[in-house]
Amino acid sequence: MALAMIDETHDPARTSWVPGADAHADFPIQNLPLGVFSREGEDPRGGIAIGNNILDLAALALSGLLEGEAMAAASAAAAPALNAMLALGAGPRQALRRRVSALLATGAPEREQVEPLLVPMAEATMHLPAHVSDYTDFYVGIHHATNIGSLFRPDNPLLPNYKHVPIGYHGRASTIRPSSVPVIRPQGQTKAPDADAPSFGPVKRLDYELELGVWLAAGNDLGTPVPIARASDLVAGITLLNDWSARDVQAWEYQPLGPFLAKNFLTTVSPWIVTMEALAPFRRPQPSRPEGDPQPLPYLWDETDQREGALSLDLEVFLSSAAMREKGLAPMRLSHGPASAMYWTIAQMVAHHASNGCQMQTGDLLGSGTISGPEEGSQGSLMEITRAGKQPVDLPTGETRTFLEDGDELSLTGHFHAENAVSIGFGECRGVVAPARI
Amino acid sequence: MALAMIDETHDPARTSWVPGADAHADFPIQNLPLGVFSREGEDPRGGIAIGNNILDLAALALSGLLEGEAMAAASAAAAPALNAMLALGAGPRQALRRRVSALLATGAPEREQVEPLLVPMAEATMHLPAHVSDYTDFYVGIHHATNIGSLFRPDNPLLPNYKHVPIGYHGRASTIRPSSVPVIRPQGQTKAPDADAPSFGPVKRLDYELELGVWLAAGNDLGTPVPIARASDLVAGITLLNDWSARDVQAWEYQPLGPFLAKNFLTTVSPWIVTMEALAPFRRPQPSRPEGDPQPLPYLWDETDQREGALSLDLEVFLSSAAMREKGLAPMRLSHGPASAMYWTIAQMVAHHASNGCQMQTGDLLGSGTISGPEEGSQGSLMEITRAGKQPVDLPTGETRTFLEDGDELSLTGHFHAENAVSIGFGECRGVVAPARI
Repeated sequence: MALAMIDETHDPARTSWVPGADAHADFPIQNLPLGVFSREGEDPRGGIAIGNNILDLAALALSGLLEGEAMAAASAAAAPALNAMLALGAGPRQALRRRVSALLATGAPEREQVEPLLVPMAEATMHLPAHVSDYTDFYVGIHHATNIGSLFRPDNPLLPNYKHVPIGYHGRASTIRPSSVPVIRPQGQTKAPDADAPSFGPVKRLDYELELGVWLAAGNDLGTPVPIARASDLVAGITLLNDWSARDVQAWEYQPLGPFLAKNFLTTVSPWIVTMEALAPFRRPQPSRPEGDPQPLPYLWDETDQREGALSLDLEVFLSSAAMREKGLAPMRLSHGPASAMYWTIAQMVAHHASNGCQMQTGDLLGSGTISGPEEGSQGSLMEITRAGKQPVDLPTGETRTFLEDGDELSLTGHFHAENAVSIGFGECRGVVAPARI
Repeated sequence: MALAMIDETHDPARTSWVPGADAHADFPIQNLPLGVFSREGEDPRGGIAIGNNILDLAALALSGLLEGEAMAAASAAAAPALNAMLALGAGPRQALRRRVSALLATGAPEREQVEPLLVPMAEATMHLPAHVSDYTDFYVGIHHATNIGSLFRPDNPLLPNYKHVPIGYHGRASTIRPSSVPVIRPQGQTKAPDADAPSFGPVKRLDYELELGVWLAAGNDLGTPVPIARASDLVAGITLLNDWSARDVQAWEYQPLGPFLAKNFLTTVSPWIVTMEALAPFRRPQPSRPEGDPQPLPYLWDETDQREGALSLDLEVFLSSAAMREKGLAPMRLSHGPASAMYWTIAQMVAHHASNGCQMQTGDLLGSGTISGPEEGSQGSLMEITRAGKQPVDLPTGETRTFLEDGDELSLTGHFHAENAVSIGFGECRGVVAPARI
């Protein structure tokens, strides 16, 4: 957005001396995402992904290789959460990116000093990149909203407010976890439409939702809205986000105040923050609104945001059952589509959230809501793919799925593509369903 | 609940040497609530209210008057938030209560050493007692749910899930503030039923909601439910809570995911945590469910909780306009009623929240939802009192109110009463409406 310029760190000709980094689908030298990692027996601390390695920012801060704003950023990152580093703002974050890009570039004279600061990912455990201050989930995937709405209201799937209001609701911060934390099947109170009374037990309709997560680096004072032209300045970067959902709980509990226990048992994020700087080459104009759609109110409208507010990003979802993994079968792709199906931009989400003076803070996480494409094969949840469980999916083992079974592994991936730019990605966002704890 | 016994700290014959404490409606020696305060130029730290004074826990920890668990609790309270102190659990909290009660009791030989540790409330600013980890708002006031529901569905006001599910939803932690922080009138997107399109501006239907707030001292592991018989053990104590609400925003935004910007601009709590220990004499059997109401599912049912889960607590709401204050008129009582109108107990709220394995944490705040009585004059919001703005309230100045105007001060009070017990209260929970920042 306004802050991130295309500079030498995006140069497609720049390569890295780190073995394998140039060929890495997610973490070539053009990405340099921020995360928090630890090795066994060590404290969690900030790092930057490069290929299959992590550059240890705590060690880098002590190396004598940094100065000025880059040094300030790396020092602040020598902590178990990146909140203090993010709160420094875009200047130090960008200075660190430029310096690290230079240090990792092929031919860097500092290579011998930097090599000992690399940690193989295979030896590291990833943590949440920041302490989550508050978590809000939006609903900007218009095809998802249409698909879900049409299950209930075939003639009028979208509610009257949808094209005026970036609909969102509050989620639970305490249950956000990085990729690979098991998805313990929740128990819950449910009531089948034909049952006399509700019952309590392991949920039967466990689903995923493919979303983007937005990490905020900065906030506003209580009572002071954030103008849309400055909303992007609050954003540190983005991740993949899986909003695990129990559809049977959701159907029974959600009236009149919205989803609660159907969602708050776990939310999984990919552990690396792909920064706004890394995204610069992949910004695209927000697709024009279809003829007849209302013009957003002025507090949600900014010309620059309309020119740059969308992302050239492909999203995929993969499923593998325990039987598939036992047989050595590759995960099956459940869906594939572009992220362009977001009816509202990230800046519109932020500006709307703060429009009533709600205080945003460093470490806030915003979910986009489920991102589905308009076509078959591009839908971001099993609820949509199986038409609420009526059309099972066939797995290569002969198994079928309407919703997730114990042992299933669900993983999300996303890759940014653009002409004259090296593609980058998010890393892992996956979880294996574990049996309910009864 | 199970942990809190009636002991010598509740003895109605016990008085305090602190001048005026015995006559104080909220903070006699039987209360001893926990809060965080500061004087100008000093760091915020923990304190205990006694009459119109605050016992400085940071100073008490250094005084040589404490030992063992009481010392551990006071030391942990020497911080700008009480999370670490609360996390020590009920044992240290109760030990500190017993020791402080003895130190403040008439005839205490340590009086001369304790007197210098008292800070007059008039010199102190109150802060939030703890950092809010996550905030959840319930909807357990059945008369409120019925009143609001009947505005939309006169023949069928309560939804089918209400008597089976303790309905709740997530709120915003970043905008919770202690009493006296101004209520800046939010702006928002609204659409009158007869308007062609929505518009954005200062909200017109600003309302309050009278609630109880529940502070948690402890939590559970992700994925592990909290049995109802142990749910009360997680609770540190309670406060008053005002869930300020913009009804015009709420009406337009809340479908399908629930209230969002209508609520998250501010939530006010009384700054003192009235502990579970202090509440022990005021526990009452939960009123029997009306004939024909369903028996709660086993995960929500505990005999001890049914015997002790309600509170003997009177709640009041007062309004004064700027003109009333200018003329020296006393605040007008808007409503008055018992807290017994809670359909679900605090333990049921906690057990339900964690029933899917959702992780609860020290510093979590749970709102009860609006508490209204069944009769006229006992309703906990202007939406109910004025029948959604159709029946204005007359003020003694000749002014009328349907919703809150700029300059209005709204305050909540609550007092616990029981035979053979000294009454206690919460202290202030008030706010003055300030004009929108346009």
